[in-house]
Parts: sequence; C-alpha cells; structure tokens
Amino acid sequence: MAKTYINELSKFVDKEATITGWLYNKRSSGKMQFLQLRDGTGIVQAVLFKGDADEELFKLCGAIPQESSIKVTGSVRADTRSPGGYELSILKIEVVQEAHDYPITPQSHGADFLLTNRHLWIRSKKQHATLRIRDEVIKSIRDYFYDKDFTLVDAPIFTPAACEGTTTLFEVDYFDDKAYLTQSGQLYMEAACMAFGKAYCFGPTFRAEKSKTKRHLTEFWMVEPEIAYADLNDVMGLSEDFVSYIVQRVLKNRKDEIAVLERDTKILQNVTPPFPRVSYDEAVDMLKKGGIDFKWGGDFGAPDETLISGNFDKPVIVHRFPAQIKAFYMKNDPENNDLALCVDMLAPEGVGEIIGGGQREDDLEILQKKIADHGLPDEAFGWYLDLRKYGSVPHAGFGLGIERMVSWLCGSSHVRETIPFPRMLYRIYP
Amino acid sequence: MAKTYINELSKFVDKEATITGWLYNKRSSGKMQFLQLRDGTGIVQAVLFKGDADEELFKLCGAIPQESSIKVTGSVRADTRSPGGYELSILKIEVVQEAHDYPITPQSHGADFLLTNRHLWIRSKKQHATLRIRDEVIKSIRDYFYDKDFTLVDAPIFTPAACEGTTTLFEVDYFDDKAYLTQSGQLYMEAACMAFGKAYCFGPTFRAEKSKTKRHLTEFWMVEPEIAYADLNDVMGLSEDFVSYIVQRVLKNRKDEIAVLERDTKILQNVTPPFPRVSYDEAVDMLKKGGIDFKWGGDFGAPDETLISGNFDKPVIVHRFPAQIKAFYMKNDPENNDLALCVDMLAPEGVGEIIGGGQREDDLEILQKKIADHGLPDEAFGWYLDLRKYGSVPHAGFGLGIERMVSWLCGSSHVRETIPFPRMLYRIYP
Repeated sequence: MAKTYINELSKFVDKEATITGWLYNKRSSGKMQFLQLRDGTGIVQAVLFKGDADEELFKLCGAIPQESSIKVTGSVRADTRSPGGYELSILKIEVVQEAHDYPITPQSHGADFLLTNRHLWIRSKKQHATLRIRDEVIKSIRDYFYDKDFTLVDAPIFTPAACEGTTTLFEVDYFDDKAYLTQSGQLYMEAACMAFGKAYCFGPTFRAEKSKTKRHLTEFWMVEPEIAYADLNDVMGLSEDFVSYIVQRVLKNRKDEIAVLERDTKILQNVTPPFPRVSYDEAVDMLKKGGIDFKWGGDFGAPDETLISGNFDKPVIVHRFPAQIKAFYMKNDPENNDLALCVDMLAPEGVGEIIGGGQREDDLEILQKKIADHGLPDEAFGWYLDLRKYGSVPHAGFGLGIERMVSWLCGSSHVRETIPFPRMLYRIYP
Repeated sequence: MAKTYINELSKFVDKEATITGWLYNKRSSGKMQFLQLRDGTGIVQAVLFKGDADEELFKLCGAIPQESSIKVTGSVRADTRSPGGYELSILKIEVVQEAHDYPITPQSHGADFLLTNRHLWIRSKKQHATLRIRDEVIKSIRDYFYDKDFTLVDAPIFTPAACEGTTTLFEVDYFDDKAYLTQSGQLYMEAACMAFGKAYCFGPTFRAEKSKTKRHLTEFWMVEPEIAYADLNDVMGLSEDFVSYIVQRVLKNRKDEIAVLERDTKILQNVTPPFPRVSYDEAVDMLKKGGIDFKWGGDFGAPDETLISGNFDKPVIVHRFPAQIKAFYMKNDPENNDLALCVDMLAPEGVGEIIGGGQREDDLEILQKKIADHGLPDEAFGWYLDLRKYGSVPHAGFGLGIERMVSWLCGSSHVRETIPFPRMLYRIYP
C-alpha cells in the first residue's frame, strides 16, 4: 500500500501527499477545521478552510470521531508555527473505520483505567514518546556492545535453580519437572565470557515480589555484560562509559520525544565520564551527616539512595559494600575481607539504583565455601563451579535494568509507563 | 586490566603483545612447541623454539593442560600460513589457573554429554562460530528494523490467555492467579502498529510441545514485525527483503565463522529479492507431481516442505493456505473465502519454514464470529477486539524464528546448537 509517513513530509513540501493514520484530536473555528493526524511516526495538523471546500467535505471533517482511521490527501506546506514544521491543506478524506466512544478522552483518567486500556493508551502522546525513548535506549545498548565486540549470548529463561534464594522465583510446571523463570543471566554470562572474552545477555527477567512500589515490575528487561580478565575497576569504567553513551544518544536522537515529555535535560546533558566514586563507608558517612540513623552493615533503602545521590549532579558509583549483604558469587576485597568487590550505580533525581555489579569469586575452594555458607544446594551449581576448575580467570560484570533507566531518562513517576505491557502484582492484562 | 585481543593483533606486528586467554590445543615437534591460544575473539598460534628459550619455559610450554588460563607475552609476526594471519613468538608465559582433565577432549563425544557440558562446549570452535553467527543475525535484525523506522515494542512474556489453544502453553503460578508464557507477541504487535505505524517485538517465546525433533526447542527467540495500513503483498515484499539482508550481512561480516563451519555458501549468496512465490494450490500440485499423496486442505509436514523448497534455489514464499488450518486472526481472501491471506517462507536445503505471517482480520463482526467458531473465550480477547472498534485498518506482519534461521545459515543439523543454552523436553540444565 502506497503511503507517506508524517516524518517524511519534508520531502513533499508544495506537493500532494496522502497520510494514512488516525484522528488524534480536532478543533474548529467555524470557518476552519483543524485535524490533528497521527500515523505513529508523528503528528501533523491538517486544515480545511470553509471557502475552499465543498460543503460535504467540510461537514465530514467536523464529524469524524476521535481515533477513527482516516486517509487524508492534502498539499504539504512548511510552517514553522506547526508542531513538526509542516501542515497539510486538506483536499480529500477517506474514513477507513469510524470509531465511536474512544475510551481515552482528553479528560484525565485514573491509573487503573489507563492500564486496563494499555493497548490504546500507548497511542497517547506521552506514552508514545516514552516507548520511543525505550526503543532508542535498547538500540543504543545493542550498538554499544556490538561496536565494542561483545558477543550477545542469550541466557536461558527456564533455569533449574535459583541465583539468590527461591522466595522471589516464579515456578513453572516443566513437563514432569519444575523450572524457574530467570532472575538474572549473570551466572550464564560467566560461562559465556570464558568462551567469548566479552559477552552480554539482554532479555526479560522475573521477580515474584509482592511489592507494589513505583519501582517494581514482576517482568522487566535487563542487560548484563560480563568480561573475562577484568576486575572491579574495569567494571566501574565500563559502566560509566556505557551509561553516558546511552544518555547522550537519547538526547541526540529523541529530541522531539524529550520535548513531548517536558523533561528538563540539564542534568542529563551533564552525564559524561568520569562519574563520582565513593566507597560504601563514605556513603554511610553521608547518610549520618544527612541526619539518617544508618547502621554500618545494612543495605541502602530508597530514601538512603536518594540522599546519597543528592550529593552529586551525575550518577554516583558506590563500591565495596559489606560482603554479608551481597550475593555469594561476589569476590571479597583482598584488602578487607569484610567487603565485597561490588558496585551500585545510583542515578540522580531520586531514581536510585540503575546498575549493580562487581567482580566475581574465581577461586574454586572459596566459592564452594560461600555456597555452603549461604545454605545453597551444591549440586545445582555443578556447572558453575566447573568455570573455576577449567581455566578460571578474574572476571567481572554488571546488570542494568532497562525500565529504571528509561524511567530516569523520561522523568516518569512510575516504571510501569516505561514498558509496553507492564506486569505487576495484580496485573497481567491486557 | 591491560590486554591485547587476538582480533587486534594486526596492530602489533613486530611488536610485543600479551594475550590473556586459554590454551585451546597444543603440539610439539621435540624442538618446537606450538600452543593454540584462544581468547574469545580468535585463535592464535604461539611458538617456542627450543634453542631460543631457557629450559624451564620450554618445559612449561609442554606441560600446560588444555583449557588452562594463561597469559602469553610474545612478539607478533605476520604469517600468511597461520590461521588468522599472525603468529606469536613466545617470550613469557604466566599460568593463571591450571585446568586438569578438561572434559571435552579432541575425541568425539555424544550429544547428551556435550549438552550437559554446554557451559564448556561453547568454547569449542564450531559452537563458538555458530553463536557468533547468531549474534550477527540478531544485530542485523535490530539494525534492519531500526533503520526502517520500526519501533521496538516488547511484547509481554506473562499473558492471560492463549493465542492458539492452551495445550502447548506453559502455565505459571502468578500469585493467586494463573499466567501463561507467551507463544507469540503478534496480538500485542497488532495493538502496537496502531500506535507506532510500524512496530516489532523480539524476545523469547515458549511452546510446551512434547516433540523431540531436531527442529524444536521449548524456548526460542522470535522476531515479529507488524505494519498498519499493510496487506499480504506488503508482507511478502518485506519478508524477502528482510531475509536477504540478514543472509548477505552474515556472509559479509562472519566470513571466518562460516569458514570454521565449512558451510558451502553458494545457495546463500543467491539469496536476494525477489523470491519465488507460489500459491498453496500450486504447492500442492508440486507435491502430487513429486509423488506425494497429499490431500488438499491439510498443512505441510517436514517432507512436504523439503519437496516444495527443493524446486527452488532460493527461499520460496507459499501464500493463501486453506483458512481452516490457519489461526482465527487471519483475514480470508476476498477472492476465495476458503483461503486465508497468509504466507509461509520455506528455506532451501531441507530447512523448512522460517517465516509465517499474513494479513489480519480487521473487521469486528467477522473476527467475533471467528473467535466463536474456534471455540475461544470471547472475554480474553476484549482488548484485541478493541483494535477493530477504534480505528481499525488493514494490517499485516510475520514472525521469524531465530534458531531456524541461524540453523540454516550455519548448516546445523539440529537447532539445539544455535541457542546458547537450549531448553528441550528433557533438558533445562545447565
């Protein structure tokens, strides 16, 4: 089917074009009809002056209901006052299907109603812009790792055992067996980096958490790079370079969408390496100075993260947490056995943790002891232990949650708007 | 950690470099030691002449076991006889970790043993090459759709209802509810294309099939583009352009890997648009001429597909199957109501179906009737029916299974080698 997309209109100035789209909005001044058309690539205003048109066409223009599918032929004019820079003078309209009582009207709706109508809500300007930014974030991640010669090694979704306990795992009947949905591809990436040097996985991950916060989804996407012959410093350097690349590319390629979201980009423009790096101990001092009664040894909660990151105008990297609160696979700091060689990256503006990572334990005996100390079933980790028997090397990596990253970039108040079809505690529809 | 990767050795000719990797293989001539080093980016031969080295280094060279992790410093020489074009004259070796009794030896192993050791098997040349090709296939798909202005709209993994019956669905306990793992993101892409014009999803999909064929996995990756204001012809055109792009890009960017797999590329080089297109009726005639007793109205099995595609030296597009064997959402052919406006693309060389797609039913009443005729629960499709109420347009799309595509490109005998950690009827480990 021949068609012209709205984002190609610059090629049709002073020519005729047919837009195949939907009626996003309209208004009339009595003598003029203004139709806002959308086709997924943009929005263009189509206008009809009563004096120029036959009566039927003018009447039709005023009668088309919101979100009806229409084909509009018109002549294209450059017009700097128009959003997008072009306007269409209507010559012909064909209504493909007339929509009646479209549920999402310009008036405001409750979150639950909008989520139930998510299949339609994604047509709305801000949701559309948010998901276009998500698309750019994901593409920039794929480009970043491809260009740096990382091999994509998809981790499995069905896993036989838990990475970190089983309480937050979704269980699946797997024929006559049980399987669990992956919470992280990291252990598999450790195998992958021994085969490919630099590897990453990027797929959906799952957490059966009964939390109803604005930062939680039961299904979310995560990218996890892992490098052989790498240490904590390598991971800190990679993570700041990586995050800076994503932010700058979104600012460059998704200007229009950022504008739709009315996102203040001052802090984002500032996101370039190096990022500030503070130790856990230093972060705890910040909390105490900030008046929070924080006890050394605990993990940071959302208010703690907000206070720490509030000290900086860039993302901040916090390193060397107490080993006791970190996963069994983290390598202990050779300079202080109570600490783990791990990092969290906290985004500014109250967004909190977007990256978690570190250097992995590469010594067979220490790892076996850690698995036992954590009360984990040894036999489930047979293959994982093999990686320490057959050519073990220092290695490190991190994970970045896509929805939190998109949420930060978009200034969204809730991660549920940063994934096309969010899955939460009480929501698997539509 | 400072290191030089093997695929960067061209920059170090006549200079010193330190390779951080693993001992892939070795041999000795008495006076010479030949070490094959791998680091994930390639394999390089490192040589040591007895006369040049102190006795200890020469002895060490001969004693390092397979897959030990080692750092080898040497001077780089261009050598056209060497695989990769470069050779290392060993100056120093540091053994990082000595591996003993690496399970995968140069002798041949059974498939089950290799799959149980998949975490190590991916280090082997052919597996490594296959997964590097998979990486290129996936990146080329992402680039293709990004460059053509499709928006990535990830479909959910947890779904409330079945796309095509429930017998092959994996069921998950979702808090106090039940959810099913997605078999296809298509229905969601129909919603997405109404919002974005051109959309695609690309993620893991699941089938609880009790089949043990060389073409089945329980977990596999699928890419599914969908376009608003598009018909069957658009989809046929897009699919041949898309498949040609992937094939040509892999041939260009993964020459070394293709060579490792000893893949004859004659047929692949020929994969350029246009592809032959035959109707189902014509395909049935081919079967009859080929001596197969095929009854009109049935679906093609693997031997049928092999016979049909054997008539062509390119992938062949078969269109307009009997509506009765196709899913409820397919639009019937206005010229023959017994036929559906759908396509299958069959790859040559006995690979079979790699693409399935078509034009979707866009009329509300007809779709409601089809859902009833197929005995599907109406209420589960409420949101899907909305797409026909609010600005319905002709739309079409297709799905391509990644593993079958990679399998074809690599000439693999079984799809299990084309995914990093295959999941099959009796296998979820490692």
